[in-house]
Amino acid sequence: MQPKLVRLSQYFLPALREAPAEAQIVSHQLMLRAGMIKQSAAGIYSWLPLGFRVLKKIEQVVREEQDRIGAVELLMPTIQSADLWHKSGRYDDYGKEMLRIKDRHDRDMLYGPTNEELITEIFRTGAKSYRDVPKLLYHIQWKFRDEVRPRFGVMRGREFYMKDAYSFDSSRENALDSYNKFFVAYLRTFARMGLKSIPMRAETGPIGGDNSHEFIILAETGESQVFCHRSYLERDGLDVMDDSSEARANAVQDWTSDYAATEDEHDAEAFAAIPETDRVSTRGIEIGHIFYFGTKYSEKLEANIIDETGATVPVHMGSYGVGVSRLMGAIIEASHDDKGIIWPAAIAPFQLGIVNVKPADTASSATAEQLIEAATNAGMEVLYDDRDQRAGVKFAEMELLGIPWRVVISPKALEAGSFEVTERKGGQTRHMALDDIVPFLCEQQ
Amino acid sequence: MQPKLVRLSQYFLPALREAPAEAQIVSHQLMLRAGMIKQSAAGIYSWLPLGFRVLKKIEQVVREEQDRIGAVELLMPTIQSADLWHKSGRYDDYGKEMLRIKDRHDRDMLYGPTNEELITEIFRTGAKSYRDVPKLLYHIQWKFRDEVRPRFGVMRGREFYMKDAYSFDSSRENALDSYNKFFVAYLRTFARMGLKSIPMRAETGPIGGDNSHEFIILAETGESQVFCHRSYLERDGLDVMDDSSEARANAVQDWTSDYAATEDEHDAEAFAAIPETDRVSTRGIEIGHIFYFGTKYSEKLEANIIDETGATVPVHMGSYGVGVSRLMGAIIEASHDDKGIIWPAAIAPFQLGIVNVKPADTASSATAEQLIEAATNAGMEVLYDDRDQRAGVKFAEMELLGIPWRVVISPKALEAGSFEVTERKGGQTRHMALDDIVPFLCEQQ
Repeated sequence: MQPKLVRLSQYFLPALREAPAEAQIVSHQLMLRAGMIKQSAAGIYSWLPLGFRVLKKIEQVVREEQDRIGAVELLMPTIQSADLWHKSGRYDDYGKEMLRIKDRHDRDMLYGPTNEELITEIFRTGAKSYRDVPKLLYHIQWKFRDEVRPRFGVMRGREFYMKDAYSFDSSRENALDSYNKFFVAYLRTFARMGLKSIPMRAETGPIGGDNSHEFIILAETGESQVFCHRSYLERDGLDVMDDSSEARANAVQDWTSDYAATEDEHDAEAFAAIPETDRVSTRGIEIGHIFYFGTKYSEKLEANIIDETGATVPVHMGSYGVGVSRLMGAIIEASHDDKGIIWPAAIAPFQLGIVNVKPADTASSATAEQLIEAATNAGMEVLYDDRDQRAGVKFAEMELLGIPWRVVISPKALEAGSFEVTERKGGQTRHMALDDIVPFLCEQQ
Repeated sequence: MQPKLVRLSQYFLPALREAPAEAQIVSHQLMLRAGMIKQSAAGIYSWLPLGFRVLKKIEQVVREEQDRIGAVELLMPTIQSADLWHKSGRYDDYGKEMLRIKDRHDRDMLYGPTNEELITEIFRTGAKSYRDVPKLLYHIQWKFRDEVRPRFGVMRGREFYMKDAYSFDSSRENALDSYNKFFVAYLRTFARMGLKSIPMRAETGPIGGDNSHEFIILAETGESQVFCHRSYLERDGLDVMDDSSEARANAVQDWTSDYAATEDEHDAEAFAAIPETDRVSTRGIEIGHIFYFGTKYSEKLEANIIDETGATVPVHMGSYGVGVSRLMGAIIEASHDDKGIIWPAAIAPFQLGIVNVKPADTASSATAEQLIEAATNAGMEVLYDDRDQRAGVKFAEMELLGIPWRVVISPKALEAGSFEVTERKGGQTRHMALDDIVPFLCEQQ
């Protein structure tokens, strides 16, 4: 929970006039210009107050949709012992992307790039039988992957914030229902953030397994080539209200019925069978990835349960990742204009920006405080520009930062009894009396 | 924000009958028995769902009290480049407790044990003049200190969760007012958690500086010897409502007027001058530490601002730490009995525990759901024990977990129209009608 009101005069928001030359894509440029992040080493960023605020919003949407499907949150550490990774065989398999560390006693440690081993060990010591499953566990924690060439800001950083979830079931059939829960949760999560995500059949890579989908948003700046049927571009988000295995299976069936695949899994022949005008071949950004991998880890790490027949069986598992920090870049790629960022309502750092054109004017400041009180009482978060700055600079900055609504307080507006209320998206300005502003904004949400 | 309702049948709470032998102190034993944490490597823990929930509560109290004094939250990464540490001179000074890492390009990195260097660099590039100060910045992030002998569970772990704040001012005088802000915030923070903290004059250690206080709670299991006047034991928490420099200075003066010092700063002669019956010599647990260190870092890292006279001067700094994960252990040390933990209301994972003695009984379950709805609507967080378990086991576990209030639903209670409502602290049981329970509990808060 962040403070409801921020006064820019007391904030720490080092906005830049120009984006540094090293920023190649628009989301990276805008995050730097808006003072949201600052690089501290290659691919490693500090989240300045505004960036941190949005990060927490994204995290909370992700969390709510995990909780909604009955996943339980916990938190695993960033540094792990290499022991479990030796057991799973991945210590040697995982390449140079794994940050390997020796502690003071010369023990092999590592900065977790993912957590299959550790969560399997946790489940193993806490669950005994079919009565303890299905169990969906997740955490939201910093990860490290030592990319050889980190780039695109937070989109391909080395230290990144990720939600990773893990499912435990007594059979393949049940495990696929857990898989479907996450599939549906991801569609909901991304739709809440204003993103049109497309589930694409994908390679399983170092996680392993035989069923995997990547959730992709289309963007020219995306790093991977993707292929899909045009139908996906016209779909709206999904809301499966019927909470049954069957409803989930139907939703997954529906969302995988048309062609959609990443380059690694691309089937040129099947794609060619689509009418040419319906073929979409473009670039995409991966924002989520889900895997079913059966007993790959449970066998090696001896995570067994007693099933309904009394037999000891390895538990069936899946894992489910969302790049929380990366999402911020992806959302900006999908939602900006030449003036700056346009935040979707659900993750905007503030819903309302108030620009006080003349803070030295007592009546203006009193009016601003009155509006702040009404807005915060109505549950809105407010960014108040009370700085001694030229009005043009303040307007431009409020647009750059992407706050959904802006109200201007000035002696002229006070005299007229009519205030400018401008929507960031589309730029439409309305004029209204002070007392009408908050009721109007509440209606818009 | 965690889910308001947890059903134990669907939770992940691997409670233990017996504490493992390696747990030497009561907080460590109870956290293991209550299924709050699980060690993954020496001094490195996973926070299981119940432990994670309390961790987030403690974090939020700490956050609110930082926000209240105008500190602004951001987030620095866990992995830092060694470059700034070479500049400050601490790369060589800091001993083996610093976890040093080589990345794939053989660059020197480290897992941040503290953040003076990085925050100074952030401030430097974002602030220019006396108009940009005072600036109080903080983050709550995982730290790593490679202790030679990690012990006492989360009280002296290697990977730990810490709030560290930093102040930036244009002069020593202003910097000391910032110091006082944190001093007062810390007294408030710890009082909200039910802790009697004593500010003690302390050594500055590797952070440096010429003014420092540790906030200590007295406990026989504490790791350091402390000495103070008995008066501190009788003080209540502090609330300075008057938000002025003078009020803060007076509060600090008042709270430092009697003798209180850690072993390193102990003055045996001054202590001997206290009447013998007022001398307290015991052990203590450090839960917070504040430092004023002037221009030590700003000079080396060239963090200058232009002062009111137009001169370029190094900024005056302080730093302020609270051990968020350690606090959980400290609170349990201070608040438990032979049945288990007794959470103070402000950080209890749930306010209400409901034990359904016979979940198979339809009327019992319907009554439990009715109570759950009323309680969650009133804003309470509820842990519902709906498991098929012996009643004795359920009662003992609810006590072990330390939930402040417990209501028992049973066919017998339904028939009588009277339900047991038991307070964890003190153990008093009241009997009341179902509809009276939530109004009664609301009154108690």
